[in-house]
Amino acid sequence: MKIAVVGGGSTYTPELVEGFARRSQVLAVDELVLHDLDSDRLDLVGGLARRIMARQSFAGRLATTTTLDDAVDGAEAVLVQLRVGGQRTRLVDETLPGRFGLLGQETTGPGGFAKALRTVPVVLGIADVVAKRAQPGAWIVDFTNPVGIVTRALLDAGHRAVGLCNVAIGIQRRLAAGFGVDPGRVRLDHAGLNHLSWVRRVLVDGVDRLPELLASDEVGELEAEAAVPVQLLRTLGAVPSYYLHYFYCTDRVVRAQASGPRRAEEVLEIERTLLQMYADPALDHKPALLEQRGGAYYSEAAAALVTSLLTGDGAHHYVDVRNDGTIAGLPDEAVVEVPALVDRDGPHPVRTAPLAPEMLGLVQAVTGYEILTISAALTGDRRVALRALLANPLVRQWDLAEPLLDAILDADRAHLPRFFPGSQPEPAATVEGVDG
Amino acid sequence: MKIAVVGGGSTYTPELVEGFARRSQVLAVDELVLHDLDSDRLDLVGGLARRIMARQSFAGRLATTTTLDDAVDGAEAVLVQLRVGGQRTRLVDETLPGRFGLLGQETTGPGGFAKALRTVPVVLGIADVVAKRAQPGAWIVDFTNPVGIVTRALLDAGHRAVGLCNVAIGIQRRLAAGFGVDPGRVRLDHAGLNHLSWVRRVLVDGVDRLPELLASDEVGELEAEAAVPVQLLRTLGAVPSYYLHYFYCTDRVVRAQASGPRRAEEVLEIERTLLQMYADPALDHKPALLEQRGGAYYSEAAAALVTSLLTGDGAHHYVDVRNDGTIAGLPDEAVVEVPALVDRDGPHPVRTAPLAPEMLGLVQAVTGYEILTISAALTGDRRVALRALLANPLVRQWDLAEPLLDAILDADRAHLPRFFPGSQPEPAATVEGVDG
Amino acid sequence: MKIAVVGGGSTYTPELVEGFARRSQVLAVDELVLHDLDSDRLDLVGGLARRIMARQSFAGRLATTTTLDDAVDGAEAVLVQLRVGGQRTRLVDETLPGRFGLLGQETTGPGGFAKALRTVPVVLGIADVVAKRAQPGAWIVDFTNPVGIVTRALLDAGHRAVGLCNVAIGIQRRLAAGFGVDPGRVRLDHAGLNHLSWVRRVLVDGVDRLPELLASDEVGELEAEAAVPVQLLRTLGAVPSYYLHYFYCTDRVVRAQASGPRRAEEVLEIERTLLQMYADPALDHKPALLEQRGGAYYSEAAAALVTSLLTGDGAHHYVDVRNDGTIAGLPDEAVVEVPALVDRDGPHPVRTAPLAPEMLGLVQAVTGYEILTISAALTGDRRVALRALLANPLVRQWDLAEPLLDAILDADRAHLPRFFPGSQPEPAATVEGVDG
Amino acid sequence: MKIAVVGGGSTYTPELVEGFARRSQVLAVDELVLHDLDSDRLDLVGGLARRIMARQSFAGRLATTTTLDDAVDGAEAVLVQLRVGGQRTRLVDETLPGRFGLLGQETTGPGGFAKALRTVPVVLGIADVVAKRAQPGAWIVDFTNPVGIVTRALLDAGHRAVGLCNVAIGIQRRLAAGFGVDPGRVRLDHAGLNHLSWVRRVLVDGVDRLPELLASDEVGELEAEAAVPVQLLRTLGAVPSYYLHYFYCTDRVVRAQASGPRRAEEVLEIERTLLQMYADPALDHKPALLEQRGGAYYSEAAAALVTSLLTGDGAHHYVDVRNDGTIAGLPDEAVVEVPALVDRDGPHPVRTAPLAPEMLGLVQAVTGYEILTISAALTGDRRVALRALLANPLVRQWDLAEPLLDAILDADRAHLPRFFPGSQPEPAATVEGVDG
Repeated sequence: MKIAVVGGGSTYTPELVEGFARRSQVLAVDELVLHDLDSDRLDLVGGLARRIMARQSFAGRLATTTTLDDAVDGAEAVLVQLRVGGQRTRLVDETLPGRFGLLGQETTGPGGFAKALRTVPVVLGIADVVAKRAQPGAWIVDFTNPVGIVTRALLDAGHRAVGLCNVAIGIQRRLAAGFGVDPGRVRLDHAGLNHLSWVRRVLVDGVDRLPELLASDEVGELEAEAAVPVQLLRTLGAVPSYYLHYFYCTDRVVRAQASGPRRAEEVLEIERTLLQMYADPALDHKPALLEQRGGAYYSEAAAALVTSLLTGDGAHHYVDVRNDGTIAGLPDEAVVEVPALVDRDGPHPVRTAPLAPEMLGLVQAVTGYEILTISAALTGDRRVALRALLANPLVRQWDLAEPLLDAILDADRAHLPRFFPGSQPEPAATVEGVDG
Repeated sequence: MKIAVVGGGSTYTPELVEGFARRSQVLAVDELVLHDLDSDRLDLVGGLARRIMARQSFAGRLATTTTLDDAVDGAEAVLVQLRVGGQRTRLVDETLPGRFGLLGQETTGPGGFAKALRTVPVVLGIADVVAKRAQPGAWIVDFTNPVGIVTRALLDAGHRAVGLCNVAIGIQRRLAAGFGVDPGRVRLDHAGLNHLSWVRRVLVDGVDRLPELLASDEVGELEAEAAVPVQLLRTLGAVPSYYLHYFYCTDRVVRAQASGPRRAEEVLEIERTLLQMYADPALDHKPALLEQRGGAYYSEAAAALVTSLLTGDGAHHYVDVRNDGTIAGLPDEAVVEVPALVDRDGPHPVRTAPLAPEMLGLVQAVTGYEILTISAALTGDRRVALRALLANPLVRQWDLAEPLLDAILDADRAHLPRFFPGSQPEPAATVEGVDG
Repeated sequence: MKIAVVGGGSTYTPELVEGFARRSQVLAVDELVLHDLDSDRLDLVGGLARRIMARQSFAGRLATTTTLDDAVDGAEAVLVQLRVGGQRTRLVDETLPGRFGLLGQETTGPGGFAKALRTVPVVLGIADVVAKRAQPGAWIVDFTNPVGIVTRALLDAGHRAVGLCNVAIGIQRRLAAGFGVDPGRVRLDHAGLNHLSWVRRVLVDGVDRLPELLASDEVGELEAEAAVPVQLLRTLGAVPSYYLHYFYCTDRVVRAQASGPRRAEEVLEIERTLLQMYADPALDHKPALLEQRGGAYYSEAAAALVTSLLTGDGAHHYVDVRNDGTIAGLPDEAVVEVPALVDRDGPHPVRTAPLAPEMLGLVQAVTGYEILTISAALTGDRRVALRALLANPLVRQWDLAEPLLDAILDADRAHLPRFFPGSQPEPAATVEGVDG
Repeated sequence: MKIAVVGGGSTYTPELVEGFARRSQVLAVDELVLHDLDSDRLDLVGGLARRIMARQSFAGRLATTTTLDDAVDGAEAVLVQLRVGGQRTRLVDETLPGRFGLLGQETTGPGGFAKALRTVPVVLGIADVVAKRAQPGAWIVDFTNPVGIVTRALLDAGHRAVGLCNVAIGIQRRLAAGFGVDPGRVRLDHAGLNHLSWVRRVLVDGVDRLPELLASDEVGELEAEAAVPVQLLRTLGAVPSYYLHYFYCTDRVVRAQASGPRRAEEVLEIERTLLQMYADPALDHKPALLEQRGGAYYSEAAAALVTSLLTGDGAHHYVDVRNDGTIAGLPDEAVVEVPALVDRDGPHPVRTAPLAPEMLGLVQAVTGYEILTISAALTGDRRVALRALLANPLVRQWDLAEPLLDAILDADRAHLPRFFPGSQPEPAATVEGVDG
C-alpha cells in the first residue's frame, strides 16, 4: 500500500507522518512518498520524517521526490496540501483587500477568491496525473484551501475526492476535553460549507449538551472558539466556526487588520524556525512549536480518514463531500461539510436537519459564489470573475468588485495563466495547504 | 360585483378609479368602496373619484367608509394599499439606518424590515375580516409594501392573495415606448423577488432584443432605469430592478443619503398639494402632479389584474406569487415575482429559466431574511428579529444588528404591540402602499 | 399565416377545416396546406375541404401536396395526425395481443407499444423537416397516437411541440350539456398521462359538482363515459378516462375481444362510405356519419389550441406537456395531460393537486414504460424493447414479453427498419391520428 | 444491556440466540427476554436457548415471559418477529387468492395485503408499549412481514425502527461462497423495496463481477436464486430477488400453486418436528433441520444489526429504512431496502444509483399500494382497502378487487377488529416473522 503526499515539504508533514505511524496496526502503509517542488525543504522535512518513523518502529518506507509522476505512481491515496506561490501569495491575499476596505483573509472573501483562481487549475492538473498513474479507484484527499472550492472542482471533473479540514475535529476535541470525556463519545451536529459551518448540537453519548453550555458560565470558551460575542451564540443557538466571525463582525476585523500583524508573516517566521529545528539530526519527534503553526488535529483527522477510505472501517469523520440532498436547499453538486461514516465507497453523510434560514441563506449565497469562482478559475473569463465577486457576500458591490478584480489579477498575474493567455506561469510551488 | 380598497384615502386612488372606469366594458363593477381611517382625506379623495367616474360615465356606485366590515362585506376583490403610521413612519425607515452607516429605504434593508414588522400583523388582521365577510373565494390584491413579505404572510395564513408591484410593468412600458411598439408586443423575462428582480430577456414579438440593447448606445436608458453602471448591466447580461442598486452600490447610496433630501419629505409635500387640488370641485381627472408621486402604471396594472382574477381572461401580468417550483432553488412557499397568466384560479406562472448563480444566491439569502421577518412580526420574538437582521445581506453583522434592532423597536414602539405586550397600539392609520 | 396538416388525407380533415373556418375572425389563416402520401385521398378530402371553406366564406387558401417540404415551408404551425401503415397496422395492434391472452388496443398495452415503435421515428423525421423549413419558433401540434409518447419524443429531441387529445374536452362538453350550462363555465380537474387520466373535480362556476354527481342517479352517464362500474367511480371519487377501463377491467375486455368485432374493421367500413360521400361535389359540410368515426370535438380542440399558440389569447386547454413539477412524483421530462393556459410561449399548466396513490403508482409505472419505449423505438434495441414490455402493467410477465416481442417484430417488420437494419421500410403512409 | 424478542416462541429463536452468543465479545448482553403468548412453546424454545447459551458460555441471563410490559421494560433493543394468528392465517394468505386466479403468497399480492391488515395494528400496539417502558431511544428491529409495510407504519408513527430481511445477506453469502472469498469482501448494489429488490452490481473487493457472472456458465446459480429464466437476468442486467418471480412469472406460479403443496403446511410439519427436538434436554445447538425452515443468515443479520445500533460500529448492512432521497423518484417517507452503514444514530444509506425505469415503475406502484394498505389497516376503511388492491400490480382489476376484499375480510374477520368495530379480536398470537 502506497500513499503520496503532494506538498510534502510542508512543515506540517512531520505531524502527518506521526499520524500514519501511530495507526500502523490498522493501516499497513508500505510506502509513503513526499512530493514537493522545493528539494531543500523536502530534504529537511523528509529527514525528520524518517527519524520519527524509526522512533515509532514504523515498518513502511519513506521516499521523497520532486517528480509528480513518481510520487503518485501506483498510489492508493494521494493527499494534496499545497499552496501555489507559497506564503508570499498568502501575504497578498491578506493585505490587498484592505486597500478597498475589505477583509483580508486567505480562504474567505477576496483573498480566498484569489487563492481559488490560482489553485484550482493546479490541483486539477495534479488530479489528472493521479487518474493516469495511481491505482484505479485511488482517492484524492484534499487539504488544499479553499477546501470546499477545490474539492468541488475535483468532483465536478469526475475525480474520486474527499475534502478535509481540521475545524470540526478541533471543536470536537476541545469540547470533549472540556467535558472530560473520551473524544469518541462526542459527536457534533456540524453543517454548512467548509469555513462556513455551524455546530448546532453537541451530542455527548447521544445527548445534546449545547443548550446547557450556552446557558452556563463556561460559554466563554465557546465565545473564544468562535471569536464572536456570546449573545450571538445564544441568538443562533449554535456555535459558528471561527471563519464565520469574518461575516458576523467584518468591520471590526477589517479595522484590526489595518494595524495588526499579518498571519502570513507570523507563519513565515515560525516556518523558518521550524525548518532550522528539523535540520537537527537528533530531533525525532514533532516540536511543540508546530502547534503554533496551526493545524491542530490535522494529523489525526487525515490519517484516520485515509484509514477509513482504504480499510472501510465505517468510522465517523467531518468531511467535505458532494451534497446530494444532505443539506436541503442546496444543489446536489454543492460540496458541503458534514459528518459522514466513511468506508471504501467514500463518505456516507449522516442525515442532517435543515439549516436555519439565517444560516441557509448565507450558505446558498456562498455556494453561488463558489460555482462562479470555479468557472472563472478554469476559463480565465473576466466577466465570470466579476460575477463571482458580486456573488460573494463580503464584496457584493459593483463599485468594489471591478477595481478589486483588476488589483487581484495584477498582483497574481504570474500564477493566473488562464487570465493572461500566452504568459508563462511560475512553477506552482507548493508547500502546505492546511490553514492556520 | 363589489370591489373594496383598503387604504382608499391614498392620493393614488384617483388613478385606480380611472383604471376601473376605463375597463368598465370588460369588468362591470357595481360598487367600489374606499376604506380609510382618515375620514377627511377619504372625503377629498372620494369626491374627486366620484367626479372622475361621472366624467367617464362609469355606471358603478362609489362608497366611502371608515368601517372595515362595511367595506369588505360581500366584496369579490379587496385591494390593500395601506401604510401603517403614514409618511411619518416612512421618514424613520429612511433615516434611522443611516445612524449605523446603513441604507435607509422603506422596502429594502433595515427600513423595509421595520416596515414589515409594523405591517404584517395589520394586513393579516384585515385579511381575517375579508375571510369572514367578503364573498367566498374573494381575492386579496396586495400593493402594501414590502409586497413580497406581506403577500407571503397572507399566503402562509391560507388567504387567497396575489401581490402586485409596478416595477416590471414600468420597465415594460418604457421599453415598448423605446422600441416604438405597442406594449402588448413586449414581454419581459423578469424573475426574482419583489424589489429584487432582474429582466433577463426583452422579448419583442418573441425575439430577445436585450443583447442588442446592451451593446448599443441606447444602453444609457437602461442604466438610468437601473441606476447602476452600464458595465454592470453588461456583466450580468440583464437589467436589475432599480431596487438592486441598493445592493450593488450600497456605499455610494449611503453617502448620498447622508446629505440628500428624504423621499418621505418630498412625498409629504406633494401629497399636501395634491389634496388641495382634489378639494377643487371642478377637478374631474387626475392631476399631472400625481405622476411625481410615483406609482406609474399602478392603475393599469391593478385594474387589469383584478379584471383577470374576476373574469378569467388569462392575461399576462407580473405578479408576486407562491413559488411552487417556478424559480429553482427556492422553497415552494417563497413568494416570487414572475410573469404569469391569470384567470379565476389565480396566477399561473410562466415557466422560468434558472437564475444565474450571482442572482440566485442573493435571492435565496433574502428569502431566508423574509421568513424570519414574518416570524418576528407575528411573534414579537426579539431573538428571531435579530436572526432576521443577520440574514439580511445589507445588515449581516452582529455588531450592527443588535443596536439597530434596539433603535428600531424604540422608534416604532407605538406600532409594534407584539414586541411590547400590554402596550396600546396606535391606530394602524393607513393610506397608500405603492412605493415611490 | 400558414398552417400545415401532415396526414391531411384523413377523413377527419373536413372537421378540422370547419374549425379553422369558424374561427377566422380571431385567427386569420392565409394558407392551409394538407399533406398526405395518398394523393387520391388527398384529392377527395381536399375537394370537400374547399367546398366547406367556400360555404363559410373562409378567406384563406387551401393547398394539397404529397411533398412534405412544400407543406411545411414557412408554416407557423404544423398539425401531425398520421398513422404509419394505415388501418391495416391498427388491425394487427388490435388482434395480435389476443394470441397471448392480452388486451388488443391501438394506444394501450402491446398494441400501443407496437404503434409507438412504428410511429416515433417517422414523426421525429417530420419534425426535423419542420425545424429546417417552417418559421422559426413554429409549433408542432401532435394528435398522432400514442400522443403522450410521441409528444415526449418530440420534446426530448428539442422540438417545440404540444400534444392534444379529445378525451378531456369530450367529457367536459358532455358534462356541460348534462348541467345545461355553457361549456365555458365547466372546468375539469383532469390529471394523469394521455389515455391514463382521471377527472377528480368538475368545477361549474368554480364549485365542484362531482361529489353530488357520484351520489346521484345520473351517475349512470359517468359509468357509461368511463365504461367501469359505478362502484369503482365512488371508490376512486373520480372519473377515470375511458382508456382506464382497459386497466381496471382487463379480463372482461380481453374476453369480449375474443369474439367481438374489431374497431379497425368498423373504421375501415366507415371510412370507405365517408370517402364516397366526400366525392359528391354537392357536399359542402361534414356528413353526420363522421361523428361515428370518433374524434368528437377534435376540430374544436385543435383549432382553439392553434389559435392560442399563434395569437397568445391565454385560453384554457387540456394538453399534453412536459411535466416540470406539475404532477408531483413524476420526472420533469415526463409528458403529462393536464389543463393549461396557452399563449405564444406554449402551455402554462394549471397548478395540480397530487394524484392519489393508486393513480400515481399506475402513472409512474406507465411513465417508466414510455421512456423505455421511446428508447427502443429510436435505437431498435431488442433488449430495451423487452424491458419496455416488462415495464408495461398490462404485460409485465417475462413469459409473455419475450414471445410477444417476437410476434410484434415479425408482424410489423416492414415498418420497423431500426430493428431490421438493412431492410427497406415501407412508405410511412399516413392518414389520420385521432383515435376512435 | 437488555434485549427483548417479541415473538420469542418462534422456532427460529435458537438461531438468534446463537447469534448473540457468538458476538458476546463485542455486544455484552446482560439480559435476553423472550416474549410470546404461547407459554408452552416459550418453555420449549427457552429451554433450548438456555442450553445453547450455556454451551457457548454466554454470560447474559435469559428470561421468558408472556407479559409484554415485563419483556420490554428497560430494553435497549426490541426485536419483533411475530405472526398474527400463526401458520393458520398464513394458509389462508396462500390459498384464498387462488380462488380468483391470483397469486397466493404471504408477503406479496393479496396474501401480503391480508397479512398487513392483520399485523400493522398489532405491531403499532407493541411499539407504543416500547415507547413507554423501554429505554429512551431504544430501537425496534422489525423482522415481522411484510417488513417494508410494517417498518413504514412504525416510522410514520414516530418510532425508532429499522426493518431487516435475510434476502440480501443470503444472496451475498452465497455469492461469496461461489467466488471462494470471505463474505466481508463482497458488497451488493442492492436496491428496491423489501421483497421487491434487485442486485445490480456484485462488488468483490470493489470490482463489479456481475457482468462476467451473467455471461458465464455459472449463471445457472443466479437463475436458481432468482427463480426466473437466465434471459431475463441478462435483459435486466441485474438479479431480481426471489420474490420478484411472483411478478415476472405470475401465471406460471399461479398454475403451480393450483396443484402444489402449500408452504404453510410444510412449515407446520417442520415446526412440529423441531419443537419435539427442542424438548430433548440433551440438545444444546440448533438442529440442522432448522435450515429447511428458511431464514438462513437471519441470526447473523439480526445480531450484527443490533450490535451496530447499540455499539455504533458503523458496519455495513442491508436494511429497510426511510428513503429520504436514497432512491430517486420515491417519496422521502417510503421505506426502501438498501445497503447502509449503521451506528447509534441508525442506518446511513449508501448512495444509490437511480433504478432503471422498469424497476422504478414497479417500485413506485408498490409504494402507492403500501401507503394505502397502511391507511386501510389503521382505519378499517373498506374504500381505502379497495384502492390498495387496485394499486397492487398483482390485483389491479376492479372486477377482482371487490370480491377479493370481501373474501379476505370474511376469512380474517377474527383478526381485523378495525374493519368490524364492536367485534372481539382473537389474541394476536404471535410466533415467528421471518419468511420461509
